[in-house]
Amino acid sequence: MPGKVAIVMGSRSDADVMAKAAVALDEFGVANETFVISAHRNPEQIADFAKNAEANGFEVIIAGAGMAAHLAGVVASMTPLPVIGVPTRSAALNGLDSLLSMVQMPSGVPVATVAIDGARNAGILAAQILSVKYPELREAVRKHKEKLAEH
Amino acid sequence: MPGKVAIVMGSRSDADVMAKAAVALDEFGVANETFVISAHRNPEQIADFAKNAEANGFEVIIAGAGMAAHLAGVVASMTPLPVIGVPTRSAALNGLDSLLSMVQMPSGVPVATVAIDGARNAGILAAQILSVKYPELREAVRKHKEKLAEH
Amino acid sequence: MPGKVAIVMGSRSDADVMAKAAVALDEFGVANETFVISAHRNPEQIADFAKNAEANGFEVIIAGAGMAAHLAGVVASMTPLPVIGVPTRSAALNGLDSLLSMVQMPSGVPVATVAIDGARNAGILAAQILSVKYPELREAVRKHKEKLAEH
Amino acid sequence: MPGKVAIVMGSRSDADVMAKAAVALDEFGVANETFVISAHRNPEQIADFAKNAEANGFEVIIAGAGMAAHLAGVVASMTPLPVIGVPTRSAALNGLDSLLSMVQMPSGVPVATVAIDGARNAGILAAQILSVKYPELREAVRKHKEKLAEH
Amino acid sequence: MPGKVAIVMGSRSDADVMAKAAVALDEFGVANETFVISAHRNPEQIADFAKNAEANGFEVIIAGAGMAAHLAGVVASMTPLPVIGVPTRSAALNGLDSLLSMVQMPSGVPVATVAIDGARNAGILAAQILSVKYPELREAVRKHKEKLAEH
Amino acid sequence: MPGKVAIVMGSRSDADVMAKAAVALDEFGVANETFVISAHRNPEQIADFAKNAEANGFEVIIAGAGMAAHLAGVVASMTPLPVIGVPTRSAALNGLDSLLSMVQMPSGVPVATVAIDGARNAGILAAQILSVKYPELREAVRKHKEKLAEH
Amino acid sequence: MPGKVAIVMGSRSDADVMAKAAVALDEFGVANETFVISAHRNPEQIADFAKNAEANGFEVIIAGAGMAAHLAGVVASMTPLPVIGVPTRSAALNGLDSLLSMVQMPSGVPVATVAIDGARNAGILAAQILSVKYPELREAVRKHKEKLAEH
Amino acid sequence: MPGKVAIVMGSRSDADVMAKAAVALDEFGVANETFVISAHRNPEQIADFAKNAEANGFEVIIAGAGMAAHLAGVVASMTPLPVIGVPTRSAALNGLDSLLSMVQMPSGVPVATVAIDGARNAGILAAQILSVKYPELREAVRKHKEKLAEH
Repeated sequence: MPGKVAIVMGSRSDADVMAKAAVALDEFGVANETFVISAHRNPEQIADFAKNAEANGFEVIIAGAGMAAHLAGVVASMTPLPVIGVPTRSAALNGLDSLLSMVQMPSGVPVATVAIDGARNAGILAAQILSVKYPELREAVRKHKEKLAEH
Repeated sequence: MPGKVAIVMGSRSDADVMAKAAVALDEFGVANETFVISAHRNPEQIADFAKNAEANGFEVIIAGAGMAAHLAGVVASMTPLPVIGVPTRSAALNGLDSLLSMVQMPSGVPVATVAIDGARNAGILAAQILSVKYPELREAVRKHKEKLAEH
Repeated sequence: MPGKVAIVMGSRSDADVMAKAAVALDEFGVANETFVISAHRNPEQIADFAKNAEANGFEVIIAGAGMAAHLAGVVASMTPLPVIGVPTRSAALNGLDSLLSMVQMPSGVPVATVAIDGARNAGILAAQILSVKYPELREAVRKHKEKLAEH
Repeated sequence: MPGKVAIVMGSRSDADVMAKAAVALDEFGVANETFVISAHRNPEQIADFAKNAEANGFEVIIAGAGMAAHLAGVVASMTPLPVIGVPTRSAALNGLDSLLSMVQMPSGVPVATVAIDGARNAGILAAQILSVKYPELREAVRKHKEKLAEH
Repeated sequence: MPGKVAIVMGSRSDADVMAKAAVALDEFGVANETFVISAHRNPEQIADFAKNAEANGFEVIIAGAGMAAHLAGVVASMTPLPVIGVPTRSAALNGLDSLLSMVQMPSGVPVATVAIDGARNAGILAAQILSVKYPELREAVRKHKEKLAEH
Repeated sequence: MPGKVAIVMGSRSDADVMAKAAVALDEFGVANETFVISAHRNPEQIADFAKNAEANGFEVIIAGAGMAAHLAGVVASMTPLPVIGVPTRSAALNGLDSLLSMVQMPSGVPVATVAIDGARNAGILAAQILSVKYPELREAVRKHKEKLAEH
Repeated sequence: MPGKVAIVMGSRSDADVMAKAAVALDEFGVANETFVISAHRNPEQIADFAKNAEANGFEVIIAGAGMAAHLAGVVASMTPLPVIGVPTRSAALNGLDSLLSMVQMPSGVPVATVAIDGARNAGILAAQILSVKYPELREAVRKHKEKLAEH
Repeated sequence: MPGKVAIVMGSRSDADVMAKAAVALDEFGVANETFVISAHRNPEQIADFAKNAEANGFEVIIAGAGMAAHLAGVVASMTPLPVIGVPTRSAALNGLDSLLSMVQMPSGVPVATVAIDGARNAGILAAQILSVKYPELREAVRKHKEKLAEH
């Protein structure tokens, strides 16, 4: 199986949304593992996760969180791996807070942000990133685009 | 001198705004020290700072940052001390991104957020918090309120 | 019991949300009392409440209100105690009006604002503030953080 | 001179904007007096002002303030007189905070809100309100509308 | 009965919200009549209504509308009477469009805007405006404020 | 010359922006005339203008206005001609108020809205609309698109 | 039958909303055809559609899409025909994203944007545009306005 | 030199902002080429560019645009390569329109969006993506993070 992606979310309440990232990666045949670690409640654990992600064989990280969604930025600050952020829809502000907290990262530490609740696209983006290295994934992305066009 | 407050900011570009917190604390006679540590660029250093703040004698922390302003939340996740957040005005979105990134913290890890660029109020709030313990500060806060009323 | 916190809300319709502040304080073993007083409908009563809060033994005030949420600011203008504001979610604008009305306080009179409907965090923040004075609360906050990390 | 209007503002920094209300009232020949009293810094003085406004012969109150603009609502809570609110343009959020803090008043205590920095319109609205009682002002409002149409 | 108020709305879909203005006026004993006329669909009829409102004995007009809510402004442009605007909650943007379309009137033609769906407050404001002329209404407003404080 | 377009604006302060619509129409060889009539200050004149626009030979109307920008909607309510709206950039809210006041028209009376300050595009759109009738304009639009592509 | 309009939408999920455009066109007796083509998933097909629309006898195009709603702009970039955009209401941001993505077109390529979910108005606008050429449609638009006024 | 990145922008007015992406890539020693092609004005050329990007040896595409910023989405719809979007700050809405137009992509076609005007971060993100394939870039990213921490 080409590539290996870590999917991490800040809260179990994001599990339904974030599952779509895993489904997309499964469709592309990309190995993936899911973690639930809050940047705010488990700072030690998230640091462990982020610092060891590369050594643990992950090549891309997808991080989903809501409200003051620091998870993706915190992970991105501790790993050289590309980090994709999924702002999840929050109760009061519908995810505008999550989106701005993820995408407006300061110079030096980017987070590749997708749409609010856009976990499926995060999975596809991870496959596209991995396709830079794995030709079979490039082929799979091409087929994905053809299937899109058929519908 | 009653109390000791740490003022930390994410970037030297926030120095002019955050200096007003120190000025306010000086007026109240509260000891304070200023640090420039980015949550995103110096994750190790910010963890050191936050974990040792209490042992270093600080009783309140004021954290100022802009854009995807994770600094206050990251610090709050690693210390039992009360953390005051100052969202600083960002270039594009005028601090709305900074404000939402600071104030919309998830359940369990509060940040006491003040107005955009409200560093002076952060200093006053720190004095009010310390006045819970130090009667001389309660007196100073009372005098501050009287002076406000005179103007 | 260490500390004593007043919880005040502008309308009985905020009672369910604000009850979470009392629950959190109960968990920390902090004495607390709840009041329903509108800043706009009971200006005399809110002035009485705010001016006497310190004499009545309260050490921190939590104020929750929605829409043009003036309650926390009005209380803060009449007491030297630290005031925590909880912007509650409003019908039309989802609490964005409540948030801006609370957090954007002018220089001189801070309100320590937490997230929209973030009453539980207001209770935790009150405990953190009181922990500046009461070592047993510092211990309790530390344990709270450990429990967070376990979940 | 028909009618008498009090113009109150929260801060001297609003003086240039609020002067346009006085100019408009002068054009209509309506007596007016200007006060600078902060709702947050001078809670006693604003209560005195609001409670005595009617006894002091004022028939309409215009209140201008920015950011968490509580002034108009606080005054409206303490007087039976109609209160017109002028949200002034704030540094960071361009007056959106001022507008929402003024207009989104809870049921029972209305504030007649005009546009951001719309002090001239506040003066005209005060004249229209007074024209309910003073026929000469009705005539003046009519002429004002004719002049508008000529330009 | 003191005073006479016209309540006009842009669409029958606003009837439930706007009925609260009539209820409030009934409580104050102020005569009122309700009209459904769209500024956009019935431009002739709205002009007739606005131009004849004064001659028909109305002393204040309350106008409620949603989305691009021009009704209050259009009426205000054609009558010297004070016009109160009620922005109603719209399907997509929750009334933010209605609010800005009502309150942001250009210099010369004010609309006294209340909160989104704030029709009850519009009725109270109309009573306050009429109380400038009718002493019995001033008394009624005073009693209204006392009742508010009791709850 | 094919077609004839009326350009109307609410205030002389919009003249610089709206001149770009005339320039675009001149480039397409479409006759155009410019009017300054405020919907709020000159309700009679705007009604005259709108009701007679068709009889006066105009085939499309471009209306530019800012803040609570009712002009385009008011004109659209009184003419069967297609009306293009240009929301102009307002001082406080940067044209967000103008945009929502123009585009969010209720069912039955559309306004063809272009970008904030997008007067040049309003001119081009008018030419595209007229090109439905005048083949020489279709040709001109085609050339315009080719020129765009060259730059 | 006068005129011929193409209605294109980005996703089948917009079908219910966009059907209102067809209903309006049917009422005016304007021929219309509906297409479901995503600008993002079927770039080839949308280019075919847009480039051949004129040759296929269409005189106006209505394009409805949500979120990052590029459909109308993409079509407008490839045809000289006037393009009407209907921003559809999106799940998280209620169509504010769709609206800004449609209306804020750069200079040179206008999209005639109507309200969020305003498909019925898009149909009416198309009829108004076609009425520039077809006198029977002008008559029908006039009757439509009379019927509006009756309700 | 490892990797090859195409930087495309919608307008020459974005050149100063987008140059920072090239500077960042140069620092990482990643080959890059810059193109100015508008999605709206040059639909043919942008299609050529996007469809041939992979064949031309590019491995990542960075696309910067403002207002209704369709460029990144249009490119992403025509290439299997990962596409990074840079929303540029627009005149009226400060880039909020650009941001929403880029990030809120529908399911199937992701754009990896960075902050408003965040071109430098786009360059860094491209290097991180390429580091999945090129070990020397992984090393360079690691050094970049160390340098960040030193400042």
